[in-house]
Amino acid sequence: DTQQLQTVEVLEGLKAHNDRAASHNRHHFDTAGVLVINLMSSPGAGKTSLLEATIDALKSNYRIAVIEGDLETENDAARIRAKGVPAVQISTGSACHLDADMVHRAVHELSLADIDILFIENVGNLVCPASFDLGQHLNIALLSTPEGDDKPLKYPVMFRACDLILVTKTDLLAVLDDFSCTAVSEHIRQLANPAPVFTLSSRRNDIAPWLDWLDTQHKKQRTPGFKPMA
Amino acid sequence: DTQQLQTVEVLEGLKAHNDRAASHNRHHFDTAGVLVINLMSSPGAGKTSLLEATIDALKSNYRIAVIEGDLETENDAARIRAKGVPAVQISTGSACHLDADMVHRAVHELSLADIDILFIENVGNLVCPASFDLGQHLNIALLSTPEGDDKPLKYPVMFRACDLILVTKTDLLAVLDDFSCTAVSEHIRQLANPAPVFTLSSRRNDIAPWLDWLDTQHKKQRTPGFKPMA
Ligand SMILES: Nc1nc2c(ncn2[C@@H]2O[C@H](COP(=O)(O)OP(=O)(O)OP(=O)(O)O)[C@@H](O)[C@H]2O)c(=O)[nH]1
Ligand SMILES: Nc1nc2c(ncn2[C@@H]2O[C@H](COP(=O)(O)OP(=O)(O)OP(=O)(O)O)[C@@H](O)[C@H]2O)c(=O)[nH]1
Ligand SMILES: [Mg+2]
Ligand SMILES: [Mg+2]
Ligand SMILES: [Zn+2]
Ligand SMILES: [Zn+2]
Repeated sequence: DTQQLQTVEVLEGLKAHNDRAASHNRHHFDTAGVLVINLMSSPGAGKTSLLEATIDALKSNYRIAVIEGDLETENDAARIRAKGVPAVQISTGSACHLDADMVHRAVHELSLADIDILFIENVGNLVCPASFDLGQHLNIALLSTPEGDDKPLKYPVMFRACDLILVTKTDLLAVLDDFSCTAVSEHIRQLANPAPVFTLSSRRNDIAPWLDWLDTQHKKQRTPGFKPMA
Repeated sequence: DTQQLQTVEVLEGLKAHNDRAASHNRHHFDTAGVLVINLMSSPGAGKTSLLEATIDALKSNYRIAVIEGDLETENDAARIRAKGVPAVQISTGSACHLDADMVHRAVHELSLADIDILFIENVGNLVCPASFDLGQHLNIALLSTPEGDDKPLKYPVMFRACDLILVTKTDLLAVLDDFSCTAVSEHIRQLANPAPVFTLSSRRNDIAPWLDWLDTQHKKQRTPGFKPMA
């Protein structure tokens, strides 16, 4: 009917608008030579904790900045600033994901020329953020061990779309009897996603493979002729 | 501009349509005298595990049925059916929440006359499900201890809207040094929500206050003159 047609049109219009804004953001990032990484996960899977540990490890090698997305509170931005790194908080109100316009406004509060790696911490949500391009170069999905190893199959939109999967909170494996890291990798392959799967514990500061991966990605981004993915 | 206006109109139209469908569902439920409970949480917070433990405990007192919402897989419905209880799986595809139309279709696959309590397990998502009325009588938010006790303040839309908060996976408190159940209650009060906050562990079958609460709600629903909330 007409209402359905109108709905489809409006939603496609919103998507086209977001894609244009994301391209604009990516142009900003590439002009300034900033590597931009979008972190996504369920609420509380450990995004901010991983950023804290990453900043501690890499602050002396890279100039880092963070855009924090949350419905409410400045808590995560405050945690990042306490590490001596610039952070812009986006309050989405009731919106369940960041969009490219929100990120654009935040970008203009940062000095891109002074940043090597910009992390965007998306709203904790294993569904909606996967469908909105922000202009990032790489998408990371975190999966914390207490959530269960079946999450990639049950929330495939996210796990199909990401360039790296980080299994977090491995320190809890000692008390979780039904989580298999091998099963996570198998499920990612079932979704036809060739992305690497790393395990880590921010709590134990056991994050070396992730730091190596970041180094590699940053070197690639700086390679002449590097083409970030669309 | 025109596009924004059109967007607002379309979204309001969708909301009004959903509200009508939810009222229709609620009429079905009230006519049949079925108590309907909507379970919401982050992915993996323990919704299906709690339903399994609840069915084990109450199957001989109540006729229970379950509507399962997931993006993909029949896994949760299969777990419920293995307990000898009817379950209808809704596959939302890429939709991040159940809506009243989806639930209506599922309801017509059940025999409401043969059900005392119908549980709806929503898609794991701490944001979007809170905004879509399904026709349920009561909303439950589960918060698992590994997610952190700050979730009510950071995801207030959900925690403002629910009639009961269940802090799950309390067996893990022994190894989590930064989770306070008291802090959860305080945060719920800060949101001006007077709902009770219970703690439980499905793993340890430590769920007595939740079972008592269900008994009380079911008795209320059966009281002559009972008016379920809008
Ligand atoms: N055991 C353990 N707990 C962790 C680890 N990393 C984070 N946590 C805990 O998990 C909870 C959530 O951590 P955050 O880093 O705030 O998670 P988040 O994904 O940023 O959460 P939101 O932004 O609210 O969605 C906190 O209680 C952390 O202490 C870890 O490696 N091991
Ligand atoms: N330690 C502990 N683990 C639990 C408890 N309840 C559930 N789990 C584990 O948590 C993970 C997710 O449990 P589910 O019951 O499938 O969670 P869910 O909320 O239904 O998950 P989705 O439907 O996928 O969003 C599984 O690995 C369960 O074994 C509990 O009380 N204690
Ligand atoms: Mg965070
Ligand atoms: Mg489930
Ligand atoms: Zn700009
Ligand atoms: Zn009907």
